[in-house]
Amino acid sequence: MAHCIVPAAEEILDKEFKVLDKGFVRMVDYYGSDSRIVQAARVSYGEGTKTVSQDGALIDYLLRHQHTSPFEQVVFTFHLKMPIFVARQWVRHRTGRMNEVSARYSIMKDEFYVPELSCISKQSSDNKQGRGELFDKSQAEEFQAAFCAGQKKSYEVYKDMVDKGAAREIARINLPLALYTEFYWQMDLHNLFHFLKLRLDSHAQYEIRVYAEQILEIIRTVCPMAVSSFENTMAKSVTFNGEEMEALRCILNGQKNPIQDEKKLKRFNEKIKTGIQL
Amino acid sequence: MAHCIVPAAEEILDKEFKVLDKGFVRMVDYYGSDSRIVQAARVSYGEGTKTVSQDGALIDYLLRHQHTSPFEQVVFTFHLKMPIFVARQWVRHRTGRMNEVSARYSIMKDEFYVPELSCISKQSSDNKQGRGELFDKSQAEEFQAAFCAGQKKSYEVYKDMVDKGAAREIARINLPLALYTEFYWQMDLHNLFHFLKLRLDSHAQYEIRVYAEQILEIIRTVCPMAVSSFENTMAKSVTFNGEEMEALRCILNGQKNPIQDEKKLKRFNEKIKTGIQL
Amino acid sequence: MAHCIVPAAEEILDKEFKVLDKGFVRMVDYYGSDSRIVQAARVSYGEGTKTVSQDGALIDYLLRHQHTSPFEQVVFTFHLKMPIFVARQWVRHRTGRMNEVSARYSIMKDEFYVPELSCISKQSSDNKQGRGELFDKSQAEEFQAAFCAGQKKSYEVYKDMVDKGAAREIARINLPLALYTEFYWQMDLHNLFHFLKLRLDSHAQYEIRVYAEQILEIIRTVCPMAVSSFENTMAKSVTFNGEEMEALRCILNGQKNPIQDEKKLKRFNEKIKTGIQL
Amino acid sequence: MAHCIVPAAEEILDKEFKVLDKGFVRMVDYYGSDSRIVQAARVSYGEGTKTVSQDGALIDYLLRHQHTSPFEQVVFTFHLKMPIFVARQWVRHRTGRMNEVSARYSIMKDEFYVPELSCISKQSSDNKQGRGELFDKSQAEEFQAAFCAGQKKSYEVYKDMVDKGAAREIARINLPLALYTEFYWQMDLHNLFHFLKLRLDSHAQYEIRVYAEQILEIIRTVCPMAVSSFENTMAKSVTFNGEEMEALRCILNGQKNPIQDEKKLKRFNEKIKTGIQL
Repeated sequence: MAHCIVPAAEEILDKEFKVLDKGFVRMVDYYGSDSRIVQAARVSYGEGTKTVSQDGALIDYLLRHQHTSPFEQVVFTFHLKMPIFVARQWVRHRTGRMNEVSARYSIMKDEFYVPELSCISKQSSDNKQGRGELFDKSQAEEFQAAFCAGQKKSYEVYKDMVDKGAAREIARINLPLALYTEFYWQMDLHNLFHFLKLRLDSHAQYEIRVYAEQILEIIRTVCPMAVSSFENTMAKSVTFNGEEMEALRCILNGQKNPIQDEKKLKRFNEKIKTGIQL
Repeated sequence: MAHCIVPAAEEILDKEFKVLDKGFVRMVDYYGSDSRIVQAARVSYGEGTKTVSQDGALIDYLLRHQHTSPFEQVVFTFHLKMPIFVARQWVRHRTGRMNEVSARYSIMKDEFYVPELSCISKQSSDNKQGRGELFDKSQAEEFQAAFCAGQKKSYEVYKDMVDKGAAREIARINLPLALYTEFYWQMDLHNLFHFLKLRLDSHAQYEIRVYAEQILEIIRTVCPMAVSSFENTMAKSVTFNGEEMEALRCILNGQKNPIQDEKKLKRFNEKIKTGIQL
Repeated sequence: MAHCIVPAAEEILDKEFKVLDKGFVRMVDYYGSDSRIVQAARVSYGEGTKTVSQDGALIDYLLRHQHTSPFEQVVFTFHLKMPIFVARQWVRHRTGRMNEVSARYSIMKDEFYVPELSCISKQSSDNKQGRGELFDKSQAEEFQAAFCAGQKKSYEVYKDMVDKGAAREIARINLPLALYTEFYWQMDLHNLFHFLKLRLDSHAQYEIRVYAEQILEIIRTVCPMAVSSFENTMAKSVTFNGEEMEALRCILNGQKNPIQDEKKLKRFNEKIKTGIQL
Repeated sequence: MAHCIVPAAEEILDKEFKVLDKGFVRMVDYYGSDSRIVQAARVSYGEGTKTVSQDGALIDYLLRHQHTSPFEQVVFTFHLKMPIFVARQWVRHRTGRMNEVSARYSIMKDEFYVPELSCISKQSSDNKQGRGELFDKSQAEEFQAAFCAGQKKSYEVYKDMVDKGAAREIARINLPLALYTEFYWQMDLHNLFHFLKLRLDSHAQYEIRVYAEQILEIIRTVCPMAVSSFENTMAKSVTFNGEEMEALRCILNGQKNPIQDEKKLKRFNEKIKTGIQL
């Protein structure tokens, strides 16, 4: 067998899925699918896997046991458009391969992220890196207007400098982090699952989470079994540490929870209730 | 545009190209081609590259200036069969993604590399890691026979242990490095060029060089412009250090070669004559 | 502050810790310690972490939330001696940086791994990659003797070829996988924890597990807080998938376990009882 | 032997070297030195290198032959402060390990890069990504004033939002790319040499080049032999492609230069004259 062509994926190939106010995710190409994962795994385990007869079961087994290399054999290329402050988080995933528009070569377009009113919230009181309650509408509108005005002004200055012949690489230094950038991004499925695990998490910034969610839906068309296995095995999984496992065993045996420390207890209970790691 | 399908590559897809006595290279799939490189580059340079109108010229420009990221957008998957001592060199290229047959799961086959007589040579006298002159035929035949006998014997012991129920992971420990192994190997074009630069070199061991040569011919069908550019820009390139550049300038200006040191002079002259880095 | 010098680590620096019959682990150097992790994390979180006052608590927090980058700031260099079949598993961890003795340059020593009788066991009946019951003593002795005889013979042939002037790179091809090799290995703490998680696992081959165990004890001297946190948070942790979390919640609420599938139920129960992922 | 302590490096350890108007490079720690490179190489080549008696000659040999792994054994940790648009280029070097201040956790300081008048130049006419001639002084002053005004204004808006309780992660989106950020950066010598080769180049943006130059001077104290070898072998090296080598041979043999194409000829001549790759 050769190229993996998946009809459901073909349908959305090259289609721009809108994210945020001016961004998008577009799958440029995909390489491999569920069958490639199985094929690669069978190279490793050879005769040894004869009894694991079904593909879905094998994929599940691989993910459960962290036999991650067959998932590296599936690769995606996305064309992404997102604000620079999101791209700065994105690029920290060093296994991705990126070709980004260069502001040294090209004149940047007048496109900035303007958050919706519901996204301009207060600092969370218990999460040092997150958002909390909403502002009242007029305050949010005031902030939104300030964003727009600042973006307009900074682009005017940029455009003026470029028009007067200034080097692009220096003219762009005052453009704001909300400026939209574009890039090609190639990522293999193993590392993409790790990316998604972190970026679908409730602690991830909203503006990157929406890209992660869109990507999850796109790759579901390419390798539905692997994505389904990911959701059960990774995305919805909860990890208990050694101390918590002891506690779990005690409780299930009808004994008293040995965890005394208040914070630890809170974390343990939250994990069981919501799956969230505090 | 979407999948890159290259007719010349389709013809050899999945075909086993024999290497050494029992090994092979088989291209399982390819991802992208010359056009993908160009496409990715144009994302980066955008309007800035309008004047570089031809694809071949752009590819050449990218390689010449070490703008390597567009070449990462092209990916190959090979199914390879090779002796373990070659695979041990192969795996040092850490950007490759590998799924290898596991001797813990599977029973290894009775397949070993037996070098041809012309490959059983003397230690090179001037190259500490290489081969030199041939032995006379009868001596080479004696060595070859010893290889065969040793391989036969070790496999008998292995087979006997496995048949008697020994764990495969322990039974295999006395199998020789000449044992053939198989693996899927995924590699992007940028890192593959680096691999080829090193492994096509005259200093590379013969048994890995023949694999590199076969791979070069295979990928030429997928991205002929990039491979042609690689050959001119990388494979046949020669690098002169600062001191040698000074010498070169002097000579071209009709002055005396300032390099006095005998070893350095030998290296300089060899480079000019043969391109080989001593 | 500058170099991290940890007295407990200084004491064992450069000391060879014996592993298997002829192998060893030797810590050549270490770079950073618990304090470096904290220092690097505080760069990221700045004022935001003022309330996380204790180093141990911060390290615990980082590991719990998979904020892994501060752990990359701690690096170790080991000198390792191990059989080639173990080194072949080792090198799959591609983030390690390795300098291995080259059998093309050097004449290999007459040193092979001979498993103890207790290590020459039967193939496991339920674990396709593992060892099961012991053989009776005389059978194990017979196998052990066969290993020794094969190693002796193959080394004689090797030595003879080298003595007669054969190139080292070809003479070595019939040496068995039990041959000892040596290498320098540099690894950062984040990736080392991942390595240890996999290689301390009961599914890992015994011969690599003993190296992992030795390494764990060595690094404990360098960064005791991080290692302690690793043991609780990673080594002894158990991950439940989405389906299992639902089951857990039902049981803890006094409801019936919704998992019906026999295999899934077995896996769930085994996880709770022993922490082992079947 | 254990830790490599180099007196010349100790003297500058932890010292802030100013770069640009408000940035700095500070070496937090170093790991290994020239002797570690030699030590690691001798593991690989063992007896094979007895004749390469001098460390400097061995280091030179390694670099010349692209035996790069011993250079990975030397590691540096820098504390860097630089504008975000420079950090965005920096992070493309994916082998570096970074811990950056998070604008989600921390309140950013009022520190922006204001280019000197001599840095606010015109777009280069022949280099699509570079700077060319200077503006007249009054025009440059006008641009500089616009930068300052924009930075002041955007920080006021940011500060106001934060003071009113807005989430830091959203308040920061309009801060300009000239904002200073800080991070810890760990890099091994092999990849650092590659970084320096690219970023010391005349095509690199001025604002990243000055950081590269400072780093080069700092690491020179740690491993003077390797840095000296780098300068001769890599930084000042010039690579001729296959076609150019043919031309070079012809010229040196007193024959006519076979290169006819005007652009190629220009590139060839420029390389010989200045070493610059057009």
